[in-house]
Amino acid sequence: MQEVNELGEDALIGKLTENWTTGSGVVVGVGDDCAVVESADPHTYTLLKTDAVIEGVHFLADENYQRVGWKALARVVSDFAAMGGWGDFYLVTLALPADFAVDKVSALYRGLEICAQKFGGQLVGGETSSVPAGSAAVISIAGTGRVKRDQLVKRTGATAGDVIYVTGQLGGSIRGKHLDFEPRVEAASWLAENFLPNSMMDLSDGLAKDLPRLADYSSCGYQLDFENIPLSEGCELSQALNDGEDYELLLTQPAEVVDELELAWDLAFPDLQLSRIGICTSEPSDQLAGGWGHFSNK
Amino acid sequence: MQEVNELGEDALIGKLTENWTTGSGVVVGVGDDCAVVESADPHTYTLLKTDAVIEGVHFLADENYQRVGWKALARVVSDFAAMGGWGDFYLVTLALPADFAVDKVSALYRGLEICAQKFGGQLVGGETSSVPAGSAAVISIAGTGRVKRDQLVKRTGATAGDVIYVTGQLGGSIRGKHLDFEPRVEAASWLAENFLPNSMMDLSDGLAKDLPRLADYSSCGYQLDFENIPLSEGCELSQALNDGEDYELLLTQPAEVVDELELAWDLAFPDLQLSRIGICTSEPSDQLAGGWGHFSNK
Repeated sequence: MQEVNELGEDALIGKLTENWTTGSGVVVGVGDDCAVVESADPHTYTLLKTDAVIEGVHFLADENYQRVGWKALARVVSDFAAMGGWGDFYLVTLALPADFAVDKVSALYRGLEICAQKFGGQLVGGETSSVPAGSAAVISIAGTGRVKRDQLVKRTGATAGDVIYVTGQLGGSIRGKHLDFEPRVEAASWLAENFLPNSMMDLSDGLAKDLPRLADYSSCGYQLDFENIPLSEGCELSQALNDGEDYELLLTQPAEVVDELELAWDLAFPDLQLSRIGICTSEPSDQLAGGWGHFSNK
Repeated sequence: MQEVNELGEDALIGKLTENWTTGSGVVVGVGDDCAVVESADPHTYTLLKTDAVIEGVHFLADENYQRVGWKALARVVSDFAAMGGWGDFYLVTLALPADFAVDKVSALYRGLEICAQKFGGQLVGGETSSVPAGSAAVISIAGTGRVKRDQLVKRTGATAGDVIYVTGQLGGSIRGKHLDFEPRVEAASWLAENFLPNSMMDLSDGLAKDLPRLADYSSCGYQLDFENIPLSEGCELSQALNDGEDYELLLTQPAEVVDELELAWDLAFPDLQLSRIGICTSEPSDQLAGGWGHFSNK
């Protein structure tokens, strides 16, 4: 009997959803940072996202739960940003063992509230359930968001010749950034408004996993300038490629706008690095392998 | 250090959300079957719901996973129905141990698909994550739905003198109904359209738990005619009150409409029993205690 670790996360999702069709009202289904559906407002689309953080996988059992709460919500905010949008409403699903400390849950909610307050959107409900004794705590956030129709950025739009960028520095997130990162909402909105990227996603599983995904979805390849990949302080290239949980933006831009973009960026975001790390090619690439995969590294 | 089982589910949620305010665009926040938010369509509201089923709590590890998939989605459909609405879009969150069988996940997805096909709404995405070895599998469904603004039914509208009804029969769900129940979408829509209930919810934790909840939210009491509570075949009253997972509708109607309602109901739903089980009172009640509670029986 085949187990999910033999298949790997991406192949599993592909198998499970292979018969799904993109039905009426659905703009983007499976395979992007968020699902995108039509809204009654002719100027916007609705974004739908769900994302879970799990004890022992995304955080340690003795972690500060306010930081865990921040992380849980910020991951969803980051996905909305990666489509060019922002969050409106959030629901919280808690699955906890019966002996879980109330203080931890309270701290978790403080983290959720602080994050929602900072990036907008409201917590409007959710659900709690018990898990059997010994099972990991699961915190899942479901969110709805919005994006202007003419500012929607997908993973599928990269084309040969596009310049590939990342924001910030990559690698070493486990030292703390994975719990208190800033979702790049402001930068993503600015890009969508002023220099609409051909494609964009947030980096959650490491550049080595996520860039090949973006290239796959866009049916193109990539050529990286490894020396231009921005390394977090004290990190080596392999960490920047494989560590995951950077929550930086990965995006591609038509070559003809990049000079103007970089000038404008430096004025708008003097404290946030934007690095040209390569170009999109017409042929498939195999420069990268690795990154983080649930179930296995496939 | 206080644990969540000392507090109980309802008190925990109350504590966690005590500082939440119902902000702009929110029609119903915490404390009903769904959250309700404004839509750009002036004739409808948007319903938001998330609900999880957990191995060892909501289903057994060796269960038929197609039935588990049905249950997972049907629970959300039932909550939309209980507000007078229906589902539009669903996201699936899977948290699974790495050795989980791919066949089980495929069967789970078939169950989700069959349920969505039957009751409307589309599966548009989701997320998979690993849980540590030995942890229970968690399947969480997030859904958005819709209700006509003039057909929204909340838990808060029951008033003294209302007649209390339940659909179907109660108790014994564990023998199988909890996995293949029919969410009462058609009946709920018919009620919302023709005899708008003063209040309604679906019965998930047993009448003994859910009727006091409805009365609390509506700031009223209740007086039950225990002999009129419809029992599932082979069940005793205590099972009908406490077993939970009936997924029938609990609703209240103004006394002046009940004769007409009952006549019309029998024509519209000859195969679905509608039972008068009591009346709402102005004074608080203590006829009931029990039902199902996560973490503890509180």
